[in-house]
Amino acid sequence: MELIPGNSLITETPEAGRRLAMDMALHSIYAIQPDGEILKTGRTVYATDPDELIASSQVVALEFATIAAANNYWR
Amino acid sequence: MELIPGNSLITETPEAGRRLAMDMALHSIYAIQPDGEILKTGRTVYATDPDELIASSQVVALEFATIAAANNYWR
Amino acid sequence: MELIPGNSLITETPEAGRRLAMDMALHSIYAIQPDGEILKTGRTVYATDPDELIASSQVVALEFATIAAANNYWR
Amino acid sequence: MELIPGNSLITETPEAGRRLAMDMALHSIYAIQPDGEILKTGRTVYATDPDELIASSQVVALEFATIAAANNYWR
Amino acid sequence: MELIPGNSLITETPEAGRRLAMDMALHSIYAIQPDGEILKTGRTVYATDPDELIASSQVVALEFATIAAANNYWR
Amino acid sequence: MELIPGNSLITETPEAGRRLAMDMALHSIYAIQPDGEILKTGRTVYATDPDELIASSQVVALEFATIAAANNYWR
Repeated sequence: MELIPGNSLITETPEAGRRLAMDMALHSIYAIQPDGEILKTGRTVYATDPDELIASSQVVALEFATIAAANNYWR
Repeated sequence: MELIPGNSLITETPEAGRRLAMDMALHSIYAIQPDGEILKTGRTVYATDPDELIASSQVVALEFATIAAANNYWR
Repeated sequence: MELIPGNSLITETPEAGRRLAMDMALHSIYAIQPDGEILKTGRTVYATDPDELIASSQVVALEFATIAAANNYWR
Repeated sequence: MELIPGNSLITETPEAGRRLAMDMALHSIYAIQPDGEILKTGRTVYATDPDELIASSQVVALEFATIAAANNYWR
Repeated sequence: MELIPGNSLITETPEAGRRLAMDMALHSIYAIQPDGEILKTGRTVYATDPDELIASSQVVALEFATIAAANNYWR
Repeated sequence: MELIPGNSLITETPEAGRRLAMDMALHSIYAIQPDGEILKTGRTVYATDPDELIASSQVVALEFATIAAANNYWR
């Protein structure tokens, strides 16, 4: 599995960059825990527990900061 | 649903940039957990639990850092 | 309520920038949880629990990083 | 109380910058919780609980990142 | 053991940079806790507990931010 | 005790920069809690608890980001 879909940080729009940030966050979770069953059980937890929803959104924010810089903020 | 409302990081004022930061944080929560009912229950928790209020404000700070850089800090 | 008091990241001194960082952190908490009563109860917790005091100081550090960059570090 | 001792981010050496980072982190804790008695009790906790020691060292790292950039890394 | 495999932050592709980020995160864990048995037990926990999976993915995001900047974002 | 061994962020190699990041993280822990006995007890906890191992590795990542920037990423 690719860790960075498309092997590039460059995207056409901020929206596409944001989707890439979400994908990169997810793919690093897959790389750490490749067992789909465990991940599915885990998802039930993190996607309903506000604590972990917020933590997940923080990882997306961090990945996006890097992608936005790579794209000169799509200025 | 758009992850980045308006598909741009450029805003006219710092205040508008801050609102965008809050929206981006919220929209990534919606994207991870699209079920409105679960989110509503969750909100009752994170918006009253100081721990999670602080964690939420940290995500806003991180999103805003990216938006502020994109706008050359509205100098 | 304004999220960024004065609608600017530019301040005359590092000290004023630091106060702005604290205000911005607080105002985003108000925006997420506008109910003053809940916030007051919450404050009793986060301002006495070392865990949450440290987490709050981290948000201030993050907001300040953005403000300091905006002001070219008051060099 | 000053939030930033000396009202400047510029220091002569990295070591002095690091001390400033620690002071800034502490002073923002004081500003959030000015009651010395509560802080003293809290300190007994955060300075012995590994969890909170690590969290404190993270805040120092974040403050220092800003100070180091302000000083062009003392190159 | 090397903390940074290859002793360089420069990689040919974003994908290789992402793998380096994961390796650097792992190697600093090894350096803090060199006992393989304890790490193996720990891995069973952090790779199944959603909380710690998310925290791990955050460290990867932070390491990657540095590597991406080092490589001028492979533009 | 020095907070920054050698009083400089400049290192010859990425590997040396990474070791400095680890030392800086440790020294700020020492500065907050100078009692060796408490630290030794704490270490047994944080170096075996996956939660705290991950948190420690995050502090190393943050310190390293600053050191890497200081060294222009050893390009």
